[in-house]
Amino acid sequence: MAKKSDLIGVFDSGVGGLTVLRAIVDLLPAESTVYLGDTARVPYGTKSPTVVTRYALRVVDHLLRFPLKALVVACNTASAVAMPALRARLDIPVLGVVEPGAQRAVEVARTRRVGVIATEGTIRSRAYERAVLALGPRAQVIGKPCPLFVPLVEEGLCSGPIVDMICHHYLDELRPQIDTAILGCTHYPLLASAIRETFGPEIQIVDSAEATALALAALLAEHQLLAPADQVAAHRFLFTDAPERTAELSARFFQKPVQQVEAVDL
Amino acid sequence: MAKKSDLIGVFDSGVGGLTVLRAIVDLLPAESTVYLGDTARVPYGTKSPTVVTRYALRVVDHLLRFPLKALVVACNTASAVAMPALRARLDIPVLGVVEPGAQRAVEVARTRRVGVIATEGTIRSRAYERAVLALGPRAQVIGKPCPLFVPLVEEGLCSGPIVDMICHHYLDELRPQIDTAILGCTHYPLLASAIRETFGPEIQIVDSAEATALALAALLAEHQLLAPADQVAAHRFLFTDAPERTAELSARFFQKPVQQVEAVDL
Repeated sequence: MAKKSDLIGVFDSGVGGLTVLRAIVDLLPAESTVYLGDTARVPYGTKSPTVVTRYALRVVDHLLRFPLKALVVACNTASAVAMPALRARLDIPVLGVVEPGAQRAVEVARTRRVGVIATEGTIRSRAYERAVLALGPRAQVIGKPCPLFVPLVEEGLCSGPIVDMICHHYLDELRPQIDTAILGCTHYPLLASAIRETFGPEIQIVDSAEATALALAALLAEHQLLAPADQVAAHRFLFTDAPERTAELSARFFQKPVQQVEAVDL
Repeated sequence: MAKKSDLIGVFDSGVGGLTVLRAIVDLLPAESTVYLGDTARVPYGTKSPTVVTRYALRVVDHLLRFPLKALVVACNTASAVAMPALRARLDIPVLGVVEPGAQRAVEVARTRRVGVIATEGTIRSRAYERAVLALGPRAQVIGKPCPLFVPLVEEGLCSGPIVDMICHHYLDELRPQIDTAILGCTHYPLLASAIRETFGPEIQIVDSAEATALALAALLAEHQLLAPADQVAAHRFLFTDAPERTAELSARFFQKPVQQVEAVDL
């Protein structure tokens, strides 16, 4: 049986999921967490569902060495394709980033026209589309892959003329067709200002990371598993590969120093 | 003992090495080849030397199921870090892309100032720098990582204003410091026009793919292993993951239709 003092496991293909972890830590500061970034196999977005599911199960088997009370799949690709396999493997609540983002979009979309911007793999999976339509059958969902956004963020280019030009390249055609846009990739919150500027004030932006943190809080409350408010939180970070820039990158995504970093060989 | 009719094995982390295969097939049309792209683990450029070497050995163990007379490591990252391990494992000639590119640059550099443009991993490895300095000790080598070039090419953006702006972003500072530039990444030949235009006519461009094909021809001749001129060449393509776009991408890099594609599980 899971206990209130157990950890929240958070898993991503790389460092992007740290934007989700950050949203969780901001909302639930008493919770202890363990993060596993599968940096040896990043990115998942270009890989087939079979391969992504195999990698996700391997990662989760490792995370189960820790006492977990919930697992957050902070990776859009794995959330899109591996949730059934992960839920079958685990007997704790498992939360992806797709459903919370879709839920929030359905709540805020005035004209029910929802855009999803994400990697090619996430768009091709149609996971957000299915999730939005399950919640709001009369919604219209338009997906737009933005494959240059991840490498821009990883290079530290989050503003300036190159970013603006690439934002317009992807978003100008989408803008007149939607009233709400889901940031369907964990890297995209770092481009939120540029994306917001390109879309203009008429379009509402839904950040899947924030939506996921809110859904996790509700899920833990429902299972009576919220940590005691006076618990001193601890955060561990595991990476399957630790090249020099992981620590620097991690701090950029987590927006706090990243300590207790360990390498694991999966 | 290797025979003249045996295959040339060509290995890369993904589809980029197909530019090297294309250069080989253009120069040596009678040679039969087997290509293995480790698309389940692409890219190698952001992974540590230990992990890259482990993956390279796994790939090569699979290629050894074919009768090989030579192996071309058509991947700059693996060429930079895994050659000693691969040469220890194999008893056929093993050729990387770094040494041939460096050799050609030393031959053409008038003022001995050589620029290397490549992924972050290749630049950080300093492999081209070491190879150039071993051949031309008085050369000066300046490396410049261009991490957005690979995603640009994979998206099919090889010309136009975004490509030009990103070329200037990376190359303007390098241009006055060099007289020769090595394209140190197998994706970059597809950006050669834009790179050439940004550098201007004063700077010579060395394409590692072409240099490697020439070095392979010389190596096979030296070992008396060139295929009979009337041999009808066959080409097989193996990928460790075969998402939908691999075939389309492959044709773009190989500049010919890619047939006999098989998936292998490593």
